[in-house]
Amino acid sequence: MSLQKFTENADLIAFARDHSPVFTPDAVLTVEEISDGNINFVYRVKGADASVIVKQALPFIRIIGEGWPLSQDRIRIEAQSLQRAAHLCPDLVPQLYHYDAPRCALVMEDIGDHQNLREALLEARALPEVAGHLATYMARTLFFSSDFYLDTQQKKALVKEFINPDLCQSTERVFFDDPYCDHERNNVHPALQQAAQQLWQDEALKGEVARLKMRFLSEAQALLHGDLHTGSVFVTEQSSQVIDPEFGFVGPAGFDPGVLIANYLLSYCAHQQMSSSSDSYCLHLRQSVADIWNGFAAGFAQLMADETRDPTLQSAGYHRYYVQQLLADTLGFAGTEIIRRTIGIAQVAEWEALDNDAALGRAKGQALTLGQQLIMQREQLASIEAALALLDS
Amino acid sequence: MSLQKFTENADLIAFARDHSPVFTPDAVLTVEEISDGNINFVYRVKGADASVIVKQALPFIRIIGEGWPLSQDRIRIEAQSLQRAAHLCPDLVPQLYHYDAPRCALVMEDIGDHQNLREALLEARALPEVAGHLATYMARTLFFSSDFYLDTQQKKALVKEFINPDLCQSTERVFFDDPYCDHERNNVHPALQQAAQQLWQDEALKGEVARLKMRFLSEAQALLHGDLHTGSVFVTEQSSQVIDPEFGFVGPAGFDPGVLIANYLLSYCAHQQMSSSSDSYCLHLRQSVADIWNGFAAGFAQLMADETRDPTLQSAGYHRYYVQQLLADTLGFAGTEIIRRTIGIAQVAEWEALDNDAALGRAKGQALTLGQQLIMQREQLASIEAALALLDS
Repeated sequence: MSLQKFTENADLIAFARDHSPVFTPDAVLTVEEISDGNINFVYRVKGADASVIVKQALPFIRIIGEGWPLSQDRIRIEAQSLQRAAHLCPDLVPQLYHYDAPRCALVMEDIGDHQNLREALLEARALPEVAGHLATYMARTLFFSSDFYLDTQQKKALVKEFINPDLCQSTERVFFDDPYCDHERNNVHPALQQAAQQLWQDEALKGEVARLKMRFLSEAQALLHGDLHTGSVFVTEQSSQVIDPEFGFVGPAGFDPGVLIANYLLSYCAHQQMSSSSDSYCLHLRQSVADIWNGFAAGFAQLMADETRDPTLQSAGYHRYYVQQLLADTLGFAGTEIIRRTIGIAQVAEWEALDNDAALGRAKGQALTLGQQLIMQREQLASIEAALALLDS
Repeated sequence: MSLQKFTENADLIAFARDHSPVFTPDAVLTVEEISDGNINFVYRVKGADASVIVKQALPFIRIIGEGWPLSQDRIRIEAQSLQRAAHLCPDLVPQLYHYDAPRCALVMEDIGDHQNLREALLEARALPEVAGHLATYMARTLFFSSDFYLDTQQKKALVKEFINPDLCQSTERVFFDDPYCDHERNNVHPALQQAAQQLWQDEALKGEVARLKMRFLSEAQALLHGDLHTGSVFVTEQSSQVIDPEFGFVGPAGFDPGVLIANYLLSYCAHQQMSSSSDSYCLHLRQSVADIWNGFAAGFAQLMADETRDPTLQSAGYHRYYVQQLLADTLGFAGTEIIRRTIGIAQVAEWEALDNDAALGRAKGQALTLGQQLIMQREQLASIEAALALLDS
C-alpha cells in the first residue's frame, strides 16, 4: 500500500490551495503541523487573511507508527459524517471543503479561534451555550439517522456506508475489554489498586458490561459520532464545533450522550479535588450534565413527535419508552467511559492537572465508584437528576 | 434490466446439466415447473436416475408479476445463506450445486422425497426427529453468526454481505404494519371483526409491536433465515431440510424461533377445531413447541459455553440473561407471526383445511387472542411451558 503522505510543504500548500475557496491566487501560504489527537496527521495551511486545515489518515496510528495498523477508510467515514452533519446542523461542524479519496485526506474550515472544550472546562470557563449546542447536535444527528426517520432502504444503505470495523474494534478494546481485567495496557493509580482488583473480580459488573458491549456490537440504532468526548468539541462563548467523527458507525444511540456526559463528570471529579476550583464551577459542571441530557432528550422527543415518518412508530407511549431506554444506555455507556478514562490506557488531561497525588487518587477513586454505580443502576435511575444524586453519596 | 428468464426447456436442461454432478452425459432430461412459494420460479430437471432443482429469481414477485418489483439480489442471499448453513449443519439443508449470478439462478439438490412440514402437520403425521433438527439448525446458524463467535471484522462483513432491504421491507409490512390497522390487504374473518377492531385501537399492544418492529429494524444479533415457517421445511421421518433463506439478514435472533413456533401454534389452533383431529396430536404439537424452544435454547447455551471466543462475553450469568431475552423476543415475534397469519394478507393452509366456517372462526379467534397475549406477556413468561399454559386459559 502506498502511504501517499504529504512529505513536502509545497505539496500540502498546493493541495490546500486547489481544494478550498478561501485563498486568493497569489496568497503566500505556510504550513504548521498541529497533529493533536493520537491517530492522524493534521496541518494548518495559512495565508495572511485565511487558513484551512488539512487532515490526512495514514494506514497506522500516528503516535505509534506502522506497528499499529489502522484502516485508512476512517477518513472517508469522517468526511461523509461531516457532510451529513453539515446538512443537519451546519453551525455545529466545521465546513468540509474537499475529501480526496486517493490521498486519504480532507481540507476543512479552520476553527482555530475556538478553544478545545476539555481545556475550557479545565480552565473553569463559563460557556452558557455549549450544553444546548451539544444537545442539538446529538438530537439531530442521531434522530435523522434512525429508523424513526429513514426508511428501510435508506437505513440499510447507511449501515453499509458506515461499516467501520477497525475503529469499532479499537473502541471495543479500550471501553469494554482492557479495563475489566488486569491488562498491561491499563494505568492504575496506586491508590486505586485495591478497588481495581475488586472491579476485575466483580462478576455482576462484568455481566452488565457484557450487555453494554453487546449493544455496542449489534444495536444499529443511529449513526454515531463514536468518540464524542470533550476533546472532540471546540468552543467560543457563542459557537460550538464538533470534530473528528472518524469512529462513526451505526450503533446504539446512547453511546454519544454517554461518552459526552462522562467527560463532564470526569471534569467534575477533577475539579472537586482542585484547590483552585470553586464550588460554583463544580455545580456548573453538574448542571451542564443535566442540561445536556435534558436538552438532548427533549430535542429527540420533539423530533420523534414531529418527524417520525413510519406511522407504526408514532405512539407517544413508545416514544417515552424509547427515551427511557436511551437514558439507561447513556448512563451505562457513561459508566464505561468513566472507568476506562480512569484506569485504562487513554486517560484524560484532567488527571494531569491534579499535581497533588493524594488529590488525584481521591478524584480517580470517586470516578471509579461513579462509573460502576452508573453501570449497575442505569435501569433504576429514572432521570438524569437521579443519576447526578450519586455524586452526593 | 434484462430478465434472463429461462424460456426454453432446452436452456434449463443445459443449465442443470452443466452445473450439477448428478447426471450422466447421455441422460435424457425433462423439466417440470414446481413453483410453490409466491416469489420465484422453481423447476425440477429430471433424468431416469437423478434430478435437481433449478430456482430462478426474476425482478418481481412471481404470483403478482412486474407490478410488484423485488430485488433479484435475494437469490444471492439465498445461495450464500445455503452455503453457510451447509458448513454448519450439512444434513439440514439441500446441497447447493451452483449459483449463477448473471442468471439469478441456482441449482440444488432435489429433496422431492421429503414432504412439506406444514402439510405433514396438517395430516397429523408423527415426526419424532423434526423438533430436534430444527432446534439444531437454529442454534448453529444463529450462534455461529453472532458476536459470541465472530470477531468484529467478520461480523461487520457478514452484516454488509446480507444487507437485504427489499425483503426486509416486505416482512416489515406484513408483520408489523398491515395487521395493526384496517388495511385493505388484510383478510379478517367475519367472526373476528370485533376483535380486529379492538386490536387496531389497542395502543398498548401497538406500542409493544413498535418495540418488536424496532428490534427487527435495528438489532443485528445473528444471520436469520428470515422466513422460517413450517412451509420452509421439508421432512421425512428421519430427515429435515430447511429451504428458502432468501429473506436472510442479520437481525434479532429471536425472530426465527418465533416464526417457527408460531406456525406450530397456528397448526395447534386449527387442529383443536378439526373434527378429525385427536387430542393426542394436539398435545404432540404443543409438546413440539416446547421441544423446539428447549432444544434450541439448550443448544445455543451449550455453544455459548463452549465456543464463545470473546473472553468478555463468557460470563454464565450473562448467558442466562441472553437466553431469557431470546425467549422474550421469540414469544413476541411468535405473537406477530400468529396475528399476521390470522388477519393479514398471507395466511396459512391450516385455515383452508377447516371447511366448517364456525370452527374456522373459533380457531382464528383463539389464534388472535394467543398472539396478543404472547406479545403483551413476553417479558413475564419465564419459560416456554408458561407460554404454552396460555393455551389453557
